Amino acid sequence: MPKISKKGIAMPESPIRKLVPYAEKAIKKGIKVFYLNIGQPDIKTPQIALDAVKNNTLEVLAYSRSEGSEIYRKKICAYYKKQNITVDATDVIVTTGGSEALLFTLGSIADQSDEIIIPEPFYANYNGFSTASGIKIVPVVSSIDTGFALPPIEDLDKLITPKTKAILICNPGNPTGYLYTKTEIEKLKALVLKHDIFLIADEVYREFVYDGLQHHSIMSETGLEQHAIMIDSVSKRYSMCGARIGCIVSKNKTFISTALKFAQARLSPPTYAQIASEAALETPQEYFDAVKKEYVSRRNTLITALQEIEGVKVSTPKGAFYCVVELPVKDADHFAQWLLEDFNLNNETVMVAPASGFYSTPGEGKNQVRIAYVLKKSALISAVSILKSALKSYPFK
Amino acid sequence: MPKISKKGIAMPESPIRKLVPYAEKAIKKGIKVFYLNIGQPDIKTPQIALDAVKNNTLEVLAYSRSEGSEIYRKKICAYYKKQNITVDATDVIVTTGGSEALLFTLGSIADQSDEIIIPEPFYANYNGFSTASGIKIVPVVSSIDTGFALPPIEDLDKLITPKTKAILICNPGNPTGYLYTKTEIEKLKALVLKHDIFLIADEVYREFVYDGLQHHSIMSETGLEQHAIMIDSVSKRYSMCGARIGCIVSKNKTFISTALKFAQARLSPPTYAQIASEAALETPQEYFDAVKKEYVSRRNTLITALQEIEGVKVSTPKGAFYCVVELPVKDADHFAQWLLEDFNLNNETVMVAPASGFYSTPGEGKNQVRIAYVLKKSALISAVSILKSALKSYPFK
Repeated sequence: MPKISKKGIAMPESPIRKLVPYAEKAIKKGIKVFYLNIGQPDIKTPQIALDAVKNNTLEVLAYSRSEGSEIYRKKICAYYKKQNITVDATDVIVTTGGSEALLFTLGSIADQSDEIIIPEPFYANYNGFSTASGIKIVPVVSSIDTGFALPPIEDLDKLITPKTKAILICNPGNPTGYLYTKTEIEKLKALVLKHDIFLIADEVYREFVYDGLQHHSIMSETGLEQHAIMIDSVSKRYSMCGARIGCIVSKNKTFISTALKFAQARLSPPTYAQIASEAALETPQEYFDAVKKEYVSRRNTLITALQEIEGVKVSTPKGAFYCVVELPVKDADHFAQWLLEDFNLNNETVMVAPASGFYSTPGEGKNQVRIAYVLKKSALISAVSILKSALKSYPFK
Repeated sequence: MPKISKKGIAMPESPIRKLVPYAEKAIKKGIKVFYLNIGQPDIKTPQIALDAVKNNTLEVLAYSRSEGSEIYRKKICAYYKKQNITVDATDVIVTTGGSEALLFTLGSIADQSDEIIIPEPFYANYNGFSTASGIKIVPVVSSIDTGFALPPIEDLDKLITPKTKAILICNPGNPTGYLYTKTEIEKLKALVLKHDIFLIADEVYREFVYDGLQHHSIMSETGLEQHAIMIDSVSKRYSMCGARIGCIVSKNKTFISTALKFAQARLSPPTYAQIASEAALETPQEYFDAVKKEYVSRRNTLITALQEIEGVKVSTPKGAFYCVVELPVKDADHFAQWLLEDFNLNNETVMVAPASGFYSTPGEGKNQVRIAYVLKKSALISAVSILKSALKSYPFK
């Protein structure tokens, strides 16, 4: 039998997707499953984007440019301008989702066994991308008790070694919902300038910021032009996760020309999805206002309901549509699987993402899960009452 | 200034795309450029595939499963069945183009500094994928004088070391158009079984086989179930390069479950493109018959015209839609750039892909170019006469 690579063996299973087979088994038994595990919103994709694809007149579905169509890159810069981010089309490489944007970025700045510092818990697939790229994540733990704020900057500073190539943040955060303050961004800026390393910000949830707070992009920081790399995606902004369109944005020309070589090797991002993404830029503001209102309302419903369960700890997210919830269980991985295999309340159960996969420090997050509030309020209320009942019945606390 | 990775510096520029800026400059000067550099066919995408996307009724453009939609995987297995390849949906992972299929495959079977043996010249982006994956390509040179047939199997055998994880072939070959014989496939089979390594076949040009010859898939070989990995793509088959849909096919369950972890990390392949690809499977045979007839006719036109130029050597490709052409020049990279920068015949010129990028042995292919016969016959005739005239005028022979 030919051998699998060490890297392949080390690749983590997705904590968001690994329980899917158990959910499917539950469904086969006639149980309804509320999917709180994945950031797949039920929000309708803007009609203008759907229509652009339906009305396309392509006769040959051809490659686009490797860096993405020029018109789309120009239009996305106009959108960024409105977000106080001044870049031009040559600063942008269109990618197949934020996923590919991260892979190209890591490949362009880090070699085998180089290090990237990331506040944890972090988006679980950073683990996968790092393993695939042979890079070591050096985590710095943020705490549920501070709402997952940036740990003291000295904690990050002392982790920096000659192998450290970048600090990576997700802002607003998946899975935490934490929104970095202007002061925190400035502290990170000073740190990366001091050590002359990159600051990568995954800003795909930029639009999902609540309570009148403001998002501060690393791309709006002066003096950070050569150090800032922004990861973006249309997936959440327009509820079009299945498009698979994202981008890399940076004013560092050497970095962009390097990332472009990775982009050229894979030829081009998907063409239909670029049509949808270009059209989506014309989405009226009312769409976002309505979506934001809906998420705030869902968040409030979810957090209030969760806080009423004994032994549950949760902090109110300021952005995105996730929260990390501490449960009165020893092993949330086991609990999440048990919910699907051995529990139901009136033939309904819940799928959550165990949070351990969102950490890289072994043992961290063992009693936490990530919940995505991507379902309607009535579904969230049902889901939380199932969770409450399950926690009562769960025999392995 | 923060540092770019060694890997990023080492990433090759695409020989297919690196001259594009020169072509764009030529166009700005009012010169018409015949694009023979890239395998972007002018053939119309099957109407059934275009219509499926135009008529889609999605309201939320959601993620698909990481391994691709189940219905599409089932249908593609039915298509394979007709090609004498018996696999089921669990043997298939849908990827974002053949590119991603290769990346996941390399990641799953090889670690940093492991080796893959590839007959050269080979598809240029194998160089990029290997560099991105930290893997070393060990080339075995095939010759224009044998039409790029498989070199003696002993030549491959003696290159195998404990670091060798696979042999990779492209069949029919890009850039050579070579079609491996049943005997050659059997020799490769014996070799990989002897050393217990993988045999990867990039079979994306399966349909493009001429002169009554037959394609032999590694997936049809009994006894090779645990060793065979097939790379596939809809890009060329249905002239839908911009879809970005491919797949990995293997009966080796450990390999597939490993590749799936890479697939999960990037969430899912593009949804619209899967709709198009699923519908494309219903393309009537007449489409392929007509396309094949057209390519044979283009090939004959091109090869005949090329063979009439003094000092040009070319062997007749048996499949795909490329040929490697030896030119009476010292440096085909320089010649290709010169064609765009300094030459035109009645305000027309030609863009070809220098072949050096299709080799990994330094110095090989320096006097060769790849020509893709993806344009109409009249355009090919014009292009070759431009080439002929250019070779007369070119001062750096």
